[in-house]
Amino acid sequence: MADRKSGGGKTGSGKAGAEDRRYKESGVEVDPLYRPEHVSDLDYDERLGDPGEYPYTRGPYPSMYRGRPWTMRQYAGFGSAKETNERFKYLIEQGQTGLSVAFDLPTQMGRDSDHSLTVGEVGKVGVAIDSLLDMRDLLDGIPLKDVSTSMTINATASTLLLLYTLVAEEQGATAADVSGTTQNDILKEYLARGTYIYPPAPSMRLTTDMFAYCAAESPRWNTISISGYHIREAGSTAVQELAFTLANAIAYVEAAVEAGLAVDEFAPRLSFFFNAHNDLFQEAAKYRAARRMWAKIMKDRFGAEDERSLKLRFHTQTAGSSLTAQQAENNIARTTVQALSAVLGGTQSLHTNAFDEALALPTEHSARIALRTQQILASEASLTDTADPLAGSYYVESLTDAVEEEAWRYIEQIDEMGGSVEAVENRFMQREIEEAAFRYQREVEREERIIVGVNRYTGGGEDAEEMDLHTVDESIRERQVQRLAELRETRDNSAVEKALSRLKAAAETGDENLLYPMKEALSEFATVGEVSDTLRAVFGEYRP
Amino acid sequence: MADRKSGGGKTGSGKAGAEDRRYKESGVEVDPLYRPEHVSDLDYDERLGDPGEYPYTRGPYPSMYRGRPWTMRQYAGFGSAKETNERFKYLIEQGQTGLSVAFDLPTQMGRDSDHSLTVGEVGKVGVAIDSLLDMRDLLDGIPLKDVSTSMTINATASTLLLLYTLVAEEQGATAADVSGTTQNDILKEYLARGTYIYPPAPSMRLTTDMFAYCAAESPRWNTISISGYHIREAGSTAVQELAFTLANAIAYVEAAVEAGLAVDEFAPRLSFFFNAHNDLFQEAAKYRAARRMWAKIMKDRFGAEDERSLKLRFHTQTAGSSLTAQQAENNIARTTVQALSAVLGGTQSLHTNAFDEALALPTEHSARIALRTQQILASEASLTDTADPLAGSYYVESLTDAVEEEAWRYIEQIDEMGGSVEAVENRFMQREIEEAAFRYQREVEREERIIVGVNRYTGGGEDAEEMDLHTVDESIRERQVQRLAELRETRDNSAVEKALSRLKAAAETGDENLLYPMKEALSEFATVGEVSDTLRAVFGEYRP
Repeated sequence: MADRKSGGGKTGSGKAGAEDRRYKESGVEVDPLYRPEHVSDLDYDERLGDPGEYPYTRGPYPSMYRGRPWTMRQYAGFGSAKETNERFKYLIEQGQTGLSVAFDLPTQMGRDSDHSLTVGEVGKVGVAIDSLLDMRDLLDGIPLKDVSTSMTINATASTLLLLYTLVAEEQGATAADVSGTTQNDILKEYLARGTYIYPPAPSMRLTTDMFAYCAAESPRWNTISISGYHIREAGSTAVQELAFTLANAIAYVEAAVEAGLAVDEFAPRLSFFFNAHNDLFQEAAKYRAARRMWAKIMKDRFGAEDERSLKLRFHTQTAGSSLTAQQAENNIARTTVQALSAVLGGTQSLHTNAFDEALALPTEHSARIALRTQQILASEASLTDTADPLAGSYYVESLTDAVEEEAWRYIEQIDEMGGSVEAVENRFMQREIEEAAFRYQREVEREERIIVGVNRYTGGGEDAEEMDLHTVDESIRERQVQRLAELRETRDNSAVEKALSRLKAAAETGDENLLYPMKEALSEFATVGEVSDTLRAVFGEYRP
Repeated sequence: MADRKSGGGKTGSGKAGAEDRRYKESGVEVDPLYRPEHVSDLDYDERLGDPGEYPYTRGPYPSMYRGRPWTMRQYAGFGSAKETNERFKYLIEQGQTGLSVAFDLPTQMGRDSDHSLTVGEVGKVGVAIDSLLDMRDLLDGIPLKDVSTSMTINATASTLLLLYTLVAEEQGATAADVSGTTQNDILKEYLARGTYIYPPAPSMRLTTDMFAYCAAESPRWNTISISGYHIREAGSTAVQELAFTLANAIAYVEAAVEAGLAVDEFAPRLSFFFNAHNDLFQEAAKYRAARRMWAKIMKDRFGAEDERSLKLRFHTQTAGSSLTAQQAENNIARTTVQALSAVLGGTQSLHTNAFDEALALPTEHSARIALRTQQILASEASLTDTADPLAGSYYVESLTDAVEEEAWRYIEQIDEMGGSVEAVENRFMQREIEEAAFRYQREVEREERIIVGVNRYTGGGEDAEEMDLHTVDESIRERQVQRLAELRETRDNSAVEKALSRLKAAAETGDENLLYPMKEALSEFATVGEVSDTLRAVFGEYRP
């Protein structure tokens, strides 16, 4: 495959003369012209199907956006829970239709704000949540029975879901009422994002415990959002993003089945998270191929029978890595094209990046423009009246087939290695991503790939200094540290210790679902760091 | 047809239940789902054809953007010729690939800057050109042999083309070397834009004289750009824009044939100018339908044999009327979607509006972002590798058929009235446009149509006062008046008078091409106002 991905390979089967063969970064060749012959073998019922019908290529639901547009879910979070709560309320007031929480690195890594390693990181890339107190502030005045919330959290996903549930219960709702998604995709953390804590095996246990817990307690919660987003941000191709995400998804399903869960018990609550990059049609093809492949995997490989298990539902975020610090306002056009690809591909929810995100966290001003971009697509561009508008296009159907074919090859390779956990451990996927990132960088340096404002059209544009950027309040760590000190003085520390011991015992024995004792500890105001340290003591930490 | 365009008519043949029928503003119904049955009757060779093949639905050229991307042609002009020349040089430096001149209203209406009616208008919506002196400044340092230039000029189109040619000749080029386009579409001025001078009949004579002159002297010049743009800006639907533009085009061809020109002598230099509005797929369908219809008209109705006569080539501008003064930066997203529709529809050249154009003329800053939007589409969004990427889409092909069908109905109606000149005079087209504009406005007022930032999502956004807007230098008129006074003192006034008398005689007799005596007068430094007044004296002025 590598020779086809070099951008100059000669092994494809396109119709152009050898002097002008063109390849996408994914290795897929693009013919100068697509004609009816390109799709003459396409069996509509088998390969496309109507929206809501197997294999769901055209969408998971019959009416798609004609029934209801996608959910506009802007990822937000910074500083303290109080500040983030204000931004949430601002976004809701501006017409956002779902919440999406960004957590700071210490929260993601299971460290309290007063840990020595957290200096300079508290409240920086997201909100700092140390305990139930912070979660209460984060969600103040937001009715959790009515809103759906996405949380970008992985190693500490169960901890944060339980804190969220505790606040819902304080509001008078039950665990069964909460709806939303935890990212909870630890495999891609080893591949790309890096916010893992424990080694793969106990991490997978936490994941399957969460599947089981939610099947029993929170059936409306999407237990996982299997994420290609960060794989792509790390420099993968569109095909790698698709293939590695599905390979990881297969690993989660296998782990859950091995842990004794029935497929149709947990699979309806699996969800996905993809990137939307600049190549408009390849991205739309990628989403369409993803639905077709997942339906086949669940049906043929895992024998799923509930049609909700077969339907791939996904959130999309526009590509952060595509944004340029140079001439930052050009990012509005990029984000528009990317958002459009997600909508044409039938996304269930969408985050559009703010134009200044290559420089800082979004301001209210830039966050509003990003949301308005989605609102313009939904209200003004006439994209919601008919489902899967690209279906039948000679080009898009050919591209969907080609992307799928290349992705199956990767999945077969990973299967041969024994699956995703092994392919992570032997660094196969990491190497493939690194090579793709290297090829891309070389193309940019050689100006074979043009990035407007970066290696061409560089004239003009504000300096970052002239822009009105978001600034982090440096006193946030001090305030969190103070709050933690007060908490540790006022809570019932013996109850905390007792609960954490029970959690530790459950982790050691391996036959109890960890989420029940974890919830008990959190309700006694144990901190995110204390819960994570308890598990660290049993599971150890992962070192690549 | 009116009942189908009301947005709630019940006469269509869609497949949705009667409870949820949806119609575009054009009256075309949108089904919830398009399937292979929707295109099962589509004969590829007859209805689509490869790009570069009759009926050119998929594009006028075989390789389309894979050979060369569209021309990026930003409409610009303000103040004096010197100031506009600076903006042209800025845009060329930023990577623009063609020039497009905006003239001020006095120049468009054939009034010199020192005429009493021009107060407050000199240099305002475009550049002020009074004589050869100004045209020299406008084009200073720009090699006219190499650049192609579009001029938005109608009633005085021949005058401005001749001034342009005179400067080219001063540079050492010939009339045969100049390439570009004059809008020169007077019929739509009566319909929508209003910058006419003479009544329709003598105006049509000026048009056909220009066809004949260019066929003989400037074969690379596109003699006319038959424009739907302003029809749409006046509030027409997409179908009306298409139908009325083609109806006007038919009238020009008929006038030229009646004047004794052979179709294939002038038709290869006819070009078109369309609007790109927000409805992504309907706009792309409109351009595809336009090519198919024009090829048929030229072949079947006019017996054209040169394939260049059959190929509709067009410039696109994004919809100025869609831009909002509220939250002006949202216009970047709108313009991106609109530009994309033009690219997916195979435009030959494109102007993208600047985000602040609902408030003022663009600044360098906003003009640069607009150009960068095109560059991002051309360089980053992978839209140039394959021609007509939407072809075969069940939805887009159905929409192309539907738009075409509705447009033919209008053309038949206009034919029955005796053609466009008559349909202008009896105000048929004007009334249809007014009704469409009224329906649209009512839908906005009733919030049946959402405009982001206008009737929903109105929170936030800068006030115009906070923005850094372009300001017109009020001293411009004074400077032009001064320059004209000097010119009238220093030129050979008896030569000017002699030349204008010859022009007048040619206008009176009616058997000489007006452009030859006009060129002579301009070369003696007769002004645009003097040339126009000479013709006014013979032709009279049009009063609606």
